[in-house]
Amino acid sequence: MSQHIVVIGGVALGPKAACRFKRLEPESTVTMIDQSSLISYGGCGIPYYVSGDVSDAIELSQTSFHMVRDPKFFKEVKGIDVQILTKATRIDREKKCVEVENVTTGEKACINYDKLVIATGASPRTLNLPGDDLKGVNYVCNPHDATCIRESISKGEVSNAVIIGAGFIGLEMAEAFADMWGVETSVVEITDQIMPRLVSPALATMGQKHMEEGGVNFYFGETVTAIEGENGKVVRVVTNKRTLDAEAVIIAAGVVPNSDIAKEAGLNVHERGGVFVDEFMRTNDPDIYAGGDCCLVKNLLTDQPAFLPLGSMANRQGRIIGSNLAGSESKFDGVIGSFVVKLFETSMAGTGMSLETAQAAGFDAISVLLIQLDRAHFYPTKELMTLELVVEKSTRRVLGVQGFGSSGDAMVGRINTVAAILKSKPTIDDISNLEVAYSPPFAAAMDILNTLANLADNALRGINRGVGPDGFKELWDNRESSECFFLDCRENPDAQPVIDRNPGQWHNVPQGEIYNRLDEIPTDKPIVLICNTGARSYEAQIMLDAKGYKDVTNIHGGMASIKKYGVDV
Amino acid sequence: MSQHIVVIGGVALGPKAACRFKRLEPESTVTMIDQSSLISYGGCGIPYYVSGDVSDAIELSQTSFHMVRDPKFFKEVKGIDVQILTKATRIDREKKCVEVENVTTGEKACINYDKLVIATGASPRTLNLPGDDLKGVNYVCNPHDATCIRESISKGEVSNAVIIGAGFIGLEMAEAFADMWGVETSVVEITDQIMPRLVSPALATMGQKHMEEGGVNFYFGETVTAIEGENGKVVRVVTNKRTLDAEAVIIAAGVVPNSDIAKEAGLNVHERGGVFVDEFMRTNDPDIYAGGDCCLVKNLLTDQPAFLPLGSMANRQGRIIGSNLAGSESKFDGVIGSFVVKLFETSMAGTGMSLETAQAAGFDAISVLLIQLDRAHFYPTKELMTLELVVEKSTRRVLGVQGFGSSGDAMVGRINTVAAILKSKPTIDDISNLEVAYSPPFAAAMDILNTLANLADNALRGINRGVGPDGFKELWDNRESSECFFLDCRENPDAQPVIDRNPGQWHNVPQGEIYNRLDEIPTDKPIVLICNTGARSYEAQIMLDAKGYKDVTNIHGGMASIKKYGVDV
Repeated sequence: MSQHIVVIGGVALGPKAACRFKRLEPESTVTMIDQSSLISYGGCGIPYYVSGDVSDAIELSQTSFHMVRDPKFFKEVKGIDVQILTKATRIDREKKCVEVENVTTGEKACINYDKLVIATGASPRTLNLPGDDLKGVNYVCNPHDATCIRESISKGEVSNAVIIGAGFIGLEMAEAFADMWGVETSVVEITDQIMPRLVSPALATMGQKHMEEGGVNFYFGETVTAIEGENGKVVRVVTNKRTLDAEAVIIAAGVVPNSDIAKEAGLNVHERGGVFVDEFMRTNDPDIYAGGDCCLVKNLLTDQPAFLPLGSMANRQGRIIGSNLAGSESKFDGVIGSFVVKLFETSMAGTGMSLETAQAAGFDAISVLLIQLDRAHFYPTKELMTLELVVEKSTRRVLGVQGFGSSGDAMVGRINTVAAILKSKPTIDDISNLEVAYSPPFAAAMDILNTLANLADNALRGINRGVGPDGFKELWDNRESSECFFLDCRENPDAQPVIDRNPGQWHNVPQGEIYNRLDEIPTDKPIVLICNTGARSYEAQIMLDAKGYKDVTNIHGGMASIKKYGVDV
Repeated sequence: MSQHIVVIGGVALGPKAACRFKRLEPESTVTMIDQSSLISYGGCGIPYYVSGDVSDAIELSQTSFHMVRDPKFFKEVKGIDVQILTKATRIDREKKCVEVENVTTGEKACINYDKLVIATGASPRTLNLPGDDLKGVNYVCNPHDATCIRESISKGEVSNAVIIGAGFIGLEMAEAFADMWGVETSVVEITDQIMPRLVSPALATMGQKHMEEGGVNFYFGETVTAIEGENGKVVRVVTNKRTLDAEAVIIAAGVVPNSDIAKEAGLNVHERGGVFVDEFMRTNDPDIYAGGDCCLVKNLLTDQPAFLPLGSMANRQGRIIGSNLAGSESKFDGVIGSFVVKLFETSMAGTGMSLETAQAAGFDAISVLLIQLDRAHFYPTKELMTLELVVEKSTRRVLGVQGFGSSGDAMVGRINTVAAILKSKPTIDDISNLEVAYSPPFAAAMDILNTLANLADNALRGINRGVGPDGFKELWDNRESSECFFLDCRENPDAQPVIDRNPGQWHNVPQGEIYNRLDEIPTDKPIVLICNTGARSYEAQIMLDAKGYKDVTNIHGGMASIKKYGVDV
């Protein structure tokens, strides 16, 4: 029995659901409408078009073999009718029709459906700032905006820019401006770190420092109060603390789900927006599905509704909707919250909960930070990777992992590996024993993921008691008053330059010599142990523990993490 | 209560177990013995030393911060007594002592233990070939061998070499000889593919072709019958089919566990070698642990004993033994069988079962092959990756995944992600919904892993019926007799060159034009559909199915996989 499906929204989930359904039921018909003239584009690629990595905006709307996904393509190749420049104004669930309006002519019509898919996406969060309508102020929400931005940069009209927001889009846009075009770029962020809530302050600072080296300025804990212009064009951004010149402004303060039409139709919608769907991606009307950025999904770690607007999520959900429209019972269980963002030559990635979100969710959690080479240390090409593991103390349950490093694929691979098992509530021991495919060009014999779990194990056993680079900075900044004894456990040639820079404040006993040189290590002061990455200083901690020392702190990540964090010693 | 631990074997598992234990029980003592003078080296790095990637053999025995892991290091840094050149000749379980012999002086002694660790490793499988004792014939089992091999190459004494065996070590050594030193290198393999049983013939052929382009010759289905020399030095290798000149020969026919000493002590040992241990890595004597290459472990997919000699496994097991010696109850559940090997600019990786091993284990399994870009297709740097998913037909259970590609970290990341959940018996749908961290520089919005599962879903639904590049080759080779109609569904500019090379045998109707040009597609011949990667030809298959065509085959992986496989059309 053939049916007619209507899909509202033609960017990511809409086309996916439509195409999947049509492949399963070629005899049925699909009408997809979108209020824009552009459909089925890779919105996540916009920063890479602005940067010039992607040379032409049309590439974002092409298949991998260079066919443009326009209405003609959908008709001929996919058998789907597309009506662009057509806005859905109302869903009449009684009559099972969608009221639409042609945005050019104003002409109205009704499109009947047997089943309906709401794929209305999300819109940039507006901050209602004075001046946000000036020329040169943009959101990054579609290829039209992107083309505007890139045109003005490439014409040399932009020598300085301000990005409002240090989340994914803000950071990607900051890189696009600063890296490829050499624009003087500033990021203003209301919280005190990049990627707030997603990663720890320690990892955030590492990423920030790398971006600063790439020419991006950051202003944290600041609120933009106004955008000012001259002759209708933006010239500066005013925050509660300063004024920044800006010939371009990007507002990247997150997105909000476009769920009004669903709400007005009486469907279940969260009070702050976002359509509720069940595991089959069905709304409370059995003939109406919804998915992608206009929906909420279940966070599988907290069982709470979550908003995770990602093109990947939309694609996977779209396929499920397409299957279910054709009679399958495919399920979308929920999300773990995996992410990755490229920051110049590095990247930041994570899955599950950060320490902050875990504690906010009521977990008695700790995190440990590890820095280690991403493959065999004797292999000629290798990079240091930093990973942070978040675990619940009482149960040893792993709640999340986040990372920062310069070998992106290698790090994302580790993150995805943990993500795959996160919903089954793994413990530290499961990660300690994870079977990572091993060969020296790709992993260490004891892979960083295994070592990370081992570090957490040792921390919970109380035998590796330490702090990360942020903790070190605090200890170091207070070194005059705290009387901490900073003990470098590396061989002397590594330690001596630091001693020379900090006479009397930095001490050195190589870990292997500790038992022979105990008299050099005071028993009445807090000892702070440091080596290259935290491994030898851990051995030193065990030795001092065995000799009865009471107040010993190991610096997790050692000199390597301190350097990436940006402390000079 | 302090105890004395004796560890037999000082390469990978031994040192790990010893150090872990010593950190947990600093007051206890550990004696580690090894018959060689070299201990604690990264044996897996030997091919990279031979190639010159690792410049000095000593690097394989160093920590990541260049301390040499020799007996002095173990004493000072780890607090462990090491006796090198000391061979364990017998374990007296009654008296709880190990009888040892100094291999230089012949002096004998007994070392008492409270608990014992057997970490005797594995030895290369010898083939008992005439001439295998000639100078220039080597196994790759320790840095001594490696130094011999590299010295003769670097002196220019080796212009041609024969490798016996196309498994991990054989292929790594072939690359070392051919890539870095330009040695004329041949690999003789008794089965008919590289990496037998581990990957499908299709993937194996892709890897083989890439290595052939790098200058390696392969002879499959051949048995070496003799190694011949002149003046005590090897000059040629004789197989059942040919004679190959060889100034160097590497025998890489696998390894066998060194478990005789355990067997003689009455411990449970497999009839073909390999110590049996429980999930705590304990032998049937509660005071004796064993692990690493001398042991068997449980294959978590088949529940059968498995032999998986890998440095990574040894390290993880070593830590567990170390913990358990100190009173923990850490468990090693078993293995999934993950692997990766670098082959020049590409790599081959996998986890779980290949189609061959799955069918041999009694599963009614199929596999599907997918080729797709490893990140967003609009992102400037990207590579095609080939993955093959093995699934059980009746249950949709995923049994394994293997892959081949040029972006190693990206592929290994995908393999590890599936490996992480493989023991929990995932279905196709679990992989279809895997939450891969998404951003255009790192993944496609529908990641290759998700698409791979979707392909398997479509194959099991019967709507995507196809064969891989090996199946295509068979169809193409028999094109004269079979009357197959080869239909290229790409746009004409892509298809025309193939038509020109194969007039009358290759036909072209772009997928979007099929319904308008049905008269060009015969209804009485088997149709073979092909496009760039298999996606558009899948759409075409659905269209032809809808029009009543009965015998339509899709080429999975399309032209891209055919090219990598080495078929010229």
